Order: sequence, then C-alpha cells, then structure tokens
Amino acid sequence: MDPVRLPASDATWVPGAEGSGFGRANLPYGAVARPGQPAEPAVRVGTHALRLQALEDAGVLSRAELPAGALAGPVLNPLLALGPDAWARLRGVLQDLLAPGAHGRAAVQTALVPLAEVELRLPVAVGDFVDFYASLEHATALGRRFRPEGDPLLPNWRHLPVGYHGRAGSVAVSGTPVRRPHGQLGLGRFGPTEELDLELELGAVTGGGGEIFGFVVVNDWSARDIQRWEYQPLGPFLGKSFATSISGWVVPLDALAGARVPPREQDPEPLPYLRDADPWALDAELEVEVNGTVRSRANARTLYWTFPQMLAHATVNGAHARPGDLFASGTISAPGPGSLVELGDGFLRDGDAVVLRGACGAVSLGEVAGTVTA
Amino acid sequence: MDPVRLPASDATWVPGAEGSGFGRANLPYGAVARPGQPAEPAVRVGTHALRLQALEDAGVLSRAELPAGALAGPVLNPLLALGPDAWARLRGVLQDLLAPGAHGRAAVQTALVPLAEVELRLPVAVGDFVDFYASLEHATALGRRFRPEGDPLLPNWRHLPVGYHGRAGSVAVSGTPVRRPHGQLGLGRFGPTEELDLELELGAVTGGGGEIFGFVVVNDWSARDIQRWEYQPLGPFLGKSFATSISGWVVPLDALAGARVPPREQDPEPLPYLRDADPWALDAELEVEVNGTVRSRANARTLYWTFPQMLAHATVNGAHARPGDLFASGTISAPGPGSLVELGDGFLRDGDAVVLRGACGAVSLGEVAGTVTA
Repeated sequence: MDPVRLPASDATWVPGAEGSGFGRANLPYGAVARPGQPAEPAVRVGTHALRLQALEDAGVLSRAELPAGALAGPVLNPLLALGPDAWARLRGVLQDLLAPGAHGRAAVQTALVPLAEVELRLPVAVGDFVDFYASLEHATALGRRFRPEGDPLLPNWRHLPVGYHGRAGSVAVSGTPVRRPHGQLGLGRFGPTEELDLELELGAVTGGGGEIFGFVVVNDWSARDIQRWEYQPLGPFLGKSFATSISGWVVPLDALAGARVPPREQDPEPLPYLRDADPWALDAELEVEVNGTVRSRANARTLYWTFPQMLAHATVNGAHARPGDLFASGTISAPGPGSLVELGDGFLRDGDAVVLRGACGAVSLGEVAGTVTA
Repeated sequence: MDPVRLPASDATWVPGAEGSGFGRANLPYGAVARPGQPAEPAVRVGTHALRLQALEDAGVLSRAELPAGALAGPVLNPLLALGPDAWARLRGVLQDLLAPGAHGRAAVQTALVPLAEVELRLPVAVGDFVDFYASLEHATALGRRFRPEGDPLLPNWRHLPVGYHGRAGSVAVSGTPVRRPHGQLGLGRFGPTEELDLELELGAVTGGGGEIFGFVVVNDWSARDIQRWEYQPLGPFLGKSFATSISGWVVPLDALAGARVPPREQDPEPLPYLRDADPWALDAELEVEVNGTVRSRANARTLYWTFPQMLAHATVNGAHARPGDLFASGTISAPGPGSLVELGDGFLRDGDAVVLRGACGAVSLGEVAGTVTA
C-alpha cells in the first residue's frame, strides 16, 4: 500500500485549523445559514465557515475572475457550472488568503463565522442522483442474501458498473433526522420497516461537463424488507427513496491529489470506454459509527469500479451530467462491511445515532450524521 | 364504456380554437420562447400561445391573486408550487377572458402569439422522474420476453405499482431529436443500440403537495439490448437514461373532469393505502405513429394501477413530491401495444419520425414528436 502523502502545506493563520483535517490543504465547500439569513456558499476552515460572497463583496476574490452571482447561493450549483479552471482559480486565491502571513487578513476575518453559529444546509441542489454498486464485496454479500439460490454476482457485474437512479429530492444534509419509513414489507404486510439499514458510500459531485468537483460521504439509508419485496424487475425504489444523507462539506478533488492510488485489478479487462490511461482510486478510510461505537471500517480504494469509470459509463449513452449531479459508489464493504445487513447482528432501532466519516490521510472527508426517529 | 362527456363549453372568441382540441375547455400550460427572448409560461389556445406574464403585466389576471414571479418563467414550477386553489383561480380567470363576448379582449390579443412564431420549450424543470409499470398487458409482454423461463408477472406486481426513478436531466420537450445511444449490447459487445424502441406513456406533473396538476404524453425511449444486459439487479439505467420526451403542453387535471371513468377491476384488493373512496382512471385514447403511419392505439383507462395509486405508493415511505415532479405510467399496452418490441416487427431506424398523441374526447392531450438521428 502506498503511504498517503501529507498535503504540501496545511498551515494557515486561522487558529486551530492546521492539522485538524480542515486546514489549508482541504478547504471543502458547503452552504451555511446564519440565524435568520438565507443559505450561502462557504468554505470550511477548521471550526469556522468562511463566507464566500462576503469575500467577493470585499473585493479579495477578484483574481479568481468569477462571474457575478457565482457565489450568491443558496447552493454551490452556479460555482459547479463554471468548471475546473474556475474552481482551481478560486481555490488558489483562497489558499493564498489563508496562508501564514497573508495579506488581506482583515477582510477574511470579517467573513469567518464559527460553525457553532451557523446551520449547515444542503450544499448542492442535486439534479440527478445515481447510485452504483461498485464494491465487489458488497455486491457479493447482497447477492447471496437476496438470491440465495443463484450465483451472487450476476453475469454483467464484472463488465459494467451496475447502477441506477435514486431520488434526488430525498437527498438531505448531515444532521437531518431520518424517519423510519412505512411500506409493504412483503406479501400483504404493511407497516414501519423492520430492517432499517445504513449504507456507507462515497459520492462524487460533478460540474456541468461531468468533471468531478469533489466528494461527500453518503449514507444511502435502506429498508431491506421493502427493498426485497419491491425490487424486481425494476430495481430499488421505496426501499431507498425515503432518505439519502450526505456530508455537508464537499471536499474538492484538488485537495485529494495525494490520496490517489492505483485502483484494484480488474478481470476481465473492461471495454475501451472504461479504460483510463492514468486510472486512480481514492485511498479514503471510512468508518461506520452507531451510538458512539465504531462498528466497521472500509476503504474506498477497495472499490472494483473507479469513479472515472462510473462517470464514463453513466454518460456513454449520451446522457449529460449537470452541475450538482451526485454519483455515489454504492456501499463500500472492504475490508469491513459497509452495511448492517452484512454485519449480521441486527438493524437500526428508533433513536439510534449513525455517523459515517472519512479521511484521506490528513485531509478529512467530514461526516454524515443522522438519528432514526419513529 | 362510458361515453366521454363533451366539455361544457369549448367556445372562445379566439379564431379557430373551438373544437380544435385546444379550445376554452382545454387551456394547457407550456413554455414558449419568442425569437431572441427567454422562455416564458403560456397557455395554448388553438394555434396560439397566450403569454401569461404579458397578461399579468396588463393587469387582467389580478383576480387570480398570484404572488409576484409566479408566471415569470422560464418554467411552470413557481405556478406548480402554488397548489390547486391558485391553479383553479387562474384557470377561471383565463376561461372568463377567453369566453365569447368577454371584456378585456385587447390585453389578451396583445399577449397572443401564433405557435409558428415561438419555440416550444420544456414546460417544467423536472425534479424527479418516476416511471411506473402499471399496464398489465405491457408487464406481461415484457416479462415474457425478458424472462422466458419464468412467470412473466412477478409476485409483487398485483400488490404494488412497481416503479423506478428515471433520469430527470434527460427529459426533453417534443421535437427534440433523439440520438441513437451507444452502450454495451451484451457480453463484450459495444456500439449503437440495435433495438431502439419507443414507449407510449402518460405522465402526471405534480404540485408541491403531490397533487396532480396535469398530464403530458410521454415517450420513454428505450434501448432494449442495453436494457436486457444491464437491468439486473438494480433495474433499467442506460437503456432508458439517454432520452425521455414529453409533450410541450401540460393539460390540467381540471380540463379532464369529463374523462374520468371507473378504473379497471383489481384482484386481489390492494392494501388500504392504495384504496380510494372515489377511484378514477382517465379515458385517454392514445396512438403511436411512425413515419406518418399509425402503428397502434391504446387507452389509459386500461392501466391496472391508477395515477392516484401510483402517487400514494411513491410517497407512502415519506418521500415528498416536489413541484414539477413527473410520474409516468409506464408503457400503456391495451388494447394495442405501446412499444415496438410488443408489435414484433422491428425497431426504429435512423431517420424514423415518431409521434405519440392522445385525446380525452374533445380535449386534446397534444403530441410528443421525435426523430431518430445516428
């Protein structure tokens, strides 16, 4: 295993940020709302949110050459629509402003708000939400459970990244409570799900050309009984569509250069449109915590299909990605399982507090939290 | 079969509209763009588009008491968000303005534009697109083809309206050309689909509370070879996500009161959340035309599951419908089949011009047209 390289410089004059996972090497984007104010784009620095429109208004972002309105909020979509060159310019300016000894500190200080004084909001208006099934270990485990009579891995699985569309309107930001869904649990049975599960995933947020802007941690809550009864032949629907939670801070791909590692071997070799001259996986350590106890640990580098492959597949038929589309990996289940059904000792109870979190070395991917309510 | 009642009064002073299917009894909503202008909401009257913001600006819609911006465009979503009372008020005012002998005719005349002078645009920004599988005849025919070894109808089919999420970002307005998609056609085979099909559907557009605002005709273009190889276990993905076309004029539910008929018998009786004190189906005659020849005729009243049942099911788990969500029936295949795979004499070729159209008696549902390109 390649060691995760530490970011070139995480140091910043913002107190407490360096080495916290949210130092100058990270600078993830989100949306926050001050009391009584609408949501606005921000960057997280340590335990502070840096309000981007306030910086723009103060004139210190002019070098980034963003069009008017790009940071006006309430979501990141206008920024996502600008594409990688604009993202890099803005990131460069922000890194300069936050560097030790930087000029223009007064304007930045005015735009910094303690996280405790803002509400975290959904960072993007999700256009379409695609969820894949890219973990070999997860697909094998679920196939065994859902189709005990057959081969757990279906014939197509090693030839294409199997995926489906989820419900974009049900994507919620970390901290949103999750109500136990009602539904058909089997033939003639209706009520609250008895098999409420979590799914540990990583999700890529895209720009308008389908480029990856950054990553969030995803909890694709699942009602296994509803899913098992409904899913044939058109796939998961109500067993998933009640809630999908994402972490509030989108970590830019540019912050993760040091965490790119060679992907897992693929056999058979995929078709040309799924080959990449410079393939990469993300060495992202992830963990599942329920009621304060870590239940499992997984790593995104174990995914069989890479994010570039997932995106290439999703658009090979001519479908366009839009700014703010969310492409999630599906449950990541290696080395440890990414769902309770795979752990095999029970499902979520009302009141359970679930936290999924991740880190690429010294760069935190943050966390996605949610508590189950009746 | 109940006779379709004719609308109380289709008469209007707008020349040529009465009896055209788009008279005063219909008044469907869409979005149009004049040359060099942004898209704006409009109502179709005969062969004219009536620009709603122009009416609002002229002060003749004040009785509808709409909030500012409701008709500002470029899509109908702000109007959809207002809910059924506002929709009824606006429709009432429009019907008064268009009645024979109506006052305020000068303002209306100024807001009328011939359809030939505007471009039809997507009427709604689709939040989520859900597609069902509600036709017994279609589910049986496709089950037989996709699973020749088993029971064509899976055990869940008569107990819940099977459905899945499609790609909202690929929904396009009538007239948009459809590029033949590339993809994996089977094991190790990649190229343009050899089995490009159409699907004749009806779609409900909702308000924010999940109420049905109106209906569009839907062509859920499908690549059968891609779909067959990819669809297990998570359902259709790239075989559908390249394009879904909808008619440009959303016919309000209020215009279709005369077309409500008792739905088809259901056996077994569905669970309580799927029962309705006053169930209804839509007596909507639909047809499939390819290159000017009508290939098949179907009627939406043959659907096994009703639209209220589809909506009740889609939201029973707590998922919220948003203004502009699209809930489509799935292919309607009775009395005639609603797809070419069911007709059995070949798929679409490059250059084929497909038109799906519908009518509820004297109220036209309009048409959705699309030509296949290489």
